[in-house]
Amino acid sequence: CRRYSAMAASSGLVFRQLFEPVSCTYTYLLADKNTKEAILIDPVLDKAERDAKLIKDLGLNMIYAANTHCHADHITGTGILKKLLPGCKSVISKDSGARADLYIQEGDQIKFGKFWVEARSTPGHTDGCLTYVLNDKSMAFTGDALLIRGCGRTDFQQGCPKTLYHSVHSKIFSLPGNCLLYPGHDYTGQTVSSVEEEKRLNPRLTKDEAEFVKIMNNLNLPKPKQIDVAVPANLKCGIQDP
Amino acid sequence: CRRYSAMAASSGLVFRQLFEPVSCTYTYLLADKNTKEAILIDPVLDKAERDAKLIKDLGLNMIYAANTHCHADHITGTGILKKLLPGCKSVISKDSGARADLYIQEGDQIKFGKFWVEARSTPGHTDGCLTYVLNDKSMAFTGDALLIRGCGRTDFQQGCPKTLYHSVHSKIFSLPGNCLLYPGHDYTGQTVSSVEEEKRLNPRLTKDEAEFVKIMNNLNLPKPKQIDVAVPANLKCGIQDP
Ligand SMILES: [Fe+2]
Ligand SMILES: [Fe+2]
Repeated sequence: CRRYSAMAASSGLVFRQLFEPVSCTYTYLLADKNTKEAILIDPVLDKAERDAKLIKDLGLNMIYAANTHCHADHITGTGILKKLLPGCKSVISKDSGARADLYIQEGDQIKFGKFWVEARSTPGHTDGCLTYVLNDKSMAFTGDALLIRGCGRTDFQQGCPKTLYHSVHSKIFSLPGNCLLYPGHDYTGQTVSSVEEEKRLNPRLTKDEAEFVKIMNNLNLPKPKQIDVAVPANLKCGIQDP
Repeated sequence: CRRYSAMAASSGLVFRQLFEPVSCTYTYLLADKNTKEAILIDPVLDKAERDAKLIKDLGLNMIYAANTHCHADHITGTGILKKLLPGCKSVISKDSGARADLYIQEGDQIKFGKFWVEARSTPGHTDGCLTYVLNDKSMAFTGDALLIRGCGRTDFQQGCPKTLYHSVHSKIFSLPGNCLLYPGHDYTGQTVSSVEEEKRLNPRLTKDEAEFVKIMNNLNLPKPKQIDVAVPANLKCGIQDP
């Protein structure tokens, strides 16, 4: 990540990274400065008011609120954002099993103005995990498939280390080295990485597959605090009516 | 903040925003990708190990660790970073009254490779507050002079609302509208704003001077938890030997 999107610099991409401190979740706002069409990736319920206010203050028109996957650690903001910003549609992968207005899969594009993000299927943390790649491949939003110097856990929600290893290597590490990687979470106060950096420095994904599987199967992590509330809610966009 | 630095995109500026969650402080890493010379703005003691590791991992050579001012809410990381990254010099404003290797003032430049940040004197939160402006005016690091939709308090450490009002209007709001503003703190999970945005949306600084002074004099904020520890430490670079 030595350079930022050349497109963002010259062509009117609006971009904001937003943070939710309880689950250390990042939400991403992307918009076309000219048409004002905007999308949010991984909004959090508790921060929906903040996000809606920012979108209104910037004069943007939210058309899609998309999740990278069905989260276990926080409740999605997509449902409430549909109420706060009428016209906004919720988006999630078909394979997630969650309800939404729009179901997408590998290769599908979410368009906003002259920009779009393309969905890449990156299962392993969950079955339905998507990575969203900006049209010029300068930025990718990896959800919990790949974190900065880490990756999402694989011990629940259809988690499978072997599957995750192949997802990251074939769908994320195949992006250009200077592609910026924006994770779903960071617990250390870091905000961004790059393909080059993670290919060189990720302590798990630089290992071979067998070693990676061993690492992931021996993490012995506690059960996520919010999972019993978050997953049922997220299967319905975070609120009763998706 | 609709666009990112065109320079960053095309000319090899390394840029990272880093977060410290206890005092909600942002630290900024800037470097020249080619020469590897790097600077840190407002590092935090508790995150010095993280910052030093990142700098080493990216193959950078830290030459300056600069503070925007003598902080009251956290202990600076500049002193310990000098030990972790030999060759690094601490920097602060002459007017801060704090010790450092290098004392700077209005108009002075901190160079790293082919880039530099220029110091603008923006007192009001403290006497010695500096705003660091990137050479192409695409980014400014405002410390606590200007926060996203807010500003630093003015009720201790030589704070003066009238002075702060003039600092922000003359030294920050005079920058180009698309200049990205990176604050010293954010308590809401926002990461960046722009001159255009703050001139239009800042609930305090959009008021006239008299109204601003009234707002600032009626905040009735509690005393910062760490002030009695942080200020004496920060007068000495955070550790005994600056
Ligand atoms: Fe997850
Ligand atoms: Fe301060």
